[in-house]
Amino acid sequence: MKPLNPPQRVLMGPGPSDVDPAVLRAMAAPTIGHLDPAFLDVMDQTKAMLRTLFGTSNDLTMPMSGTGSAGMETLMVNLIEPGDRVLVGVNGVFGTRMVELARRCRAEVVVAEKPWGQAFTVEDLAAAGGDRSFRALFLVHAETSTGVLQPLEGMRELCDRLGALLAIDCVTSLAGLPVELDRHGVDAAYSGTQKCLSAPPGLSPISLSDRAFAHVLGRSTPVQSWYLDLSLIHRYWDENTRAYHHTAPINTIYALHEACRLALDEGLEARWARHRRLGGALAAGLSDMGLNLPVAPDLRLPQLTVVEVPEGVDDKAVRGRLIRDYGLEIGGGLGAFAGKRWRIGLMGSACTERNVLFCLSALREVLA
Amino acid sequence: MKPLNPPQRVLMGPGPSDVDPAVLRAMAAPTIGHLDPAFLDVMDQTKAMLRTLFGTSNDLTMPMSGTGSAGMETLMVNLIEPGDRVLVGVNGVFGTRMVELARRCRAEVVVAEKPWGQAFTVEDLAAAGGDRSFRALFLVHAETSTGVLQPLEGMRELCDRLGALLAIDCVTSLAGLPVELDRHGVDAAYSGTQKCLSAPPGLSPISLSDRAFAHVLGRSTPVQSWYLDLSLIHRYWDENTRAYHHTAPINTIYALHEACRLALDEGLEARWARHRRLGGALAAGLSDMGLNLPVAPDLRLPQLTVVEVPEGVDDKAVRGRLIRDYGLEIGGGLGAFAGKRWRIGLMGSACTERNVLFCLSALREVLA
Repeated sequence: MKPLNPPQRVLMGPGPSDVDPAVLRAMAAPTIGHLDPAFLDVMDQTKAMLRTLFGTSNDLTMPMSGTGSAGMETLMVNLIEPGDRVLVGVNGVFGTRMVELARRCRAEVVVAEKPWGQAFTVEDLAAAGGDRSFRALFLVHAETSTGVLQPLEGMRELCDRLGALLAIDCVTSLAGLPVELDRHGVDAAYSGTQKCLSAPPGLSPISLSDRAFAHVLGRSTPVQSWYLDLSLIHRYWDENTRAYHHTAPINTIYALHEACRLALDEGLEARWARHRRLGGALAAGLSDMGLNLPVAPDLRLPQLTVVEVPEGVDDKAVRGRLIRDYGLEIGGGLGAFAGKRWRIGLMGSACTERNVLFCLSALREVLA
Repeated sequence: MKPLNPPQRVLMGPGPSDVDPAVLRAMAAPTIGHLDPAFLDVMDQTKAMLRTLFGTSNDLTMPMSGTGSAGMETLMVNLIEPGDRVLVGVNGVFGTRMVELARRCRAEVVVAEKPWGQAFTVEDLAAAGGDRSFRALFLVHAETSTGVLQPLEGMRELCDRLGALLAIDCVTSLAGLPVELDRHGVDAAYSGTQKCLSAPPGLSPISLSDRAFAHVLGRSTPVQSWYLDLSLIHRYWDENTRAYHHTAPINTIYALHEACRLALDEGLEARWARHRRLGGALAAGLSDMGLNLPVAPDLRLPQLTVVEVPEGVDDKAVRGRLIRDYGLEIGGGLGAFAGKRWRIGLMGSACTERNVLFCLSALREVLA
């Protein structure tokens, strides 16, 4: 068996995104023990940086030892007890996945639906909820399957009326556009590392409000997952307890630490502005080529532009040629959008003027 | 926030173990997409190497996207349906954890107990099982909390009488002593990467026999975890389907690939012999110092030697001085053994003559 020698790509799909060489170098630092005093410092610093990124002062803010989907499952298994009623907004693949996970937690799931490519209004969700109360409302802040931003304004007030915790998926939004959990009164959120943070995949940063965490600690039934049980794991990440739970993925946390550091060094406002500016440039360039962008301009994610595959064009052939001849990865459609959409990411380190120009040129040549 | 600069340690605890620089370099290769043709090759090669390491031809052999504990949970949630009766051997912390996880899967758990530091005989387990039938028997092949090897001879025949699948934890045994799933008729196994494979923590290699996997596919209830549901994940790792499930931890899999490659390059027989020889040397040296090794010689794990903390010696002070003054990590006791045992690992890349001599010298100085 020969040593690995993976090709150098330009990652402009829906994630993973290009990882900064500094992050890869940090990941290759010597492994140390998960209870080594030097590693405990890394944990504390990572928690502090994640709080800034999430826009929160939540004490329980930490990375889970799995990818973004493990973060989704973490919120579900910790917040839901069997029989709890939850309201889930479904306007794409990840909302659909939330419903599936909530059902596996034996929740009574009320589904609010909206066509793929659109966002929910507060009124949509209020109508779906009716006069019932809910344990939680789950929304996808940035739907990676459709490229749609879900505005959060008014959702806190809605949740107060529903008696619900407000829980959001910000896998694709974190570090690419404003998340600001505390400003929006979000109780629980999860993200991924391989999108706008531009770290390798493998961790899911999460954050829970004191109220949400008190609910977890006060459950009458055990969390159905031991691996994702926050009432246990927080005792390892808490500087006052440091109780062993599982062996943390040391080097992956090094990478996250460096990625957070680079993001905060750039500054959140500057980082959001970069994504906004270059996302706008890409969208304009694609429109100029005659391609149709199905998402309304005010709901477009700057970090993930969704394009309709033109009539008569072979989706797979185009993406295959882009990766083979140009080393360029863009994403295909998921679920109902398979073969019908391309998803072009400009996330984190991959969000550069050079990549905008390269992608537009390559796509123009391949479609010619 | 300053860039990371973790210290260089000598990792002789119960894991993580020292990672070979070649593995760290592989981990820092450029991230590529989880559906990139080049990454699919990495996946196929990794599966093939894991089969050799596990001593199996099981088709379903792959790394789960979490640490060893996620591997334990994978076996539990996939093999157990609510109400299933399972038999679990408990002679240390990880057997205890298995009971906890099986209960969270709503199994009827029958516990076979043995004092910590001892192994089960077939007769012990047969007596605990009585004339009942079981969905599965769960055993810990190498108990990381006690340093005890659990012989597997005769367990297949016992399981046939119990109507049970044979499931084992080989987190600490894999690549350090013979595992040989097929020879022992094991139906399901999970391991970790940060022990005798000497890769960073973050993945859990698993393997299921065709019979065990058929049981998973034929379940009448959904697996309670979506993230660990093998009926879904296998469709991503299967070369004939490649259906997206979650974003694989790309760089962590690079590291596992390189670690497997190095292990197979050394050769399994040679690797087992190295652990046996140096584990024996360490045990002899510790005994010569007057320290007591509580595990019977024929059940001692060569890769993890357990030592009684001598009367009047302050466990934490000794381990603190070792790490502070010598950069040497050894493990303390877990659970009932807290403060009473040290656990000294010689795992994978850390299993060297130099480390044996260094550890004995450092311990001699600190205990003087």
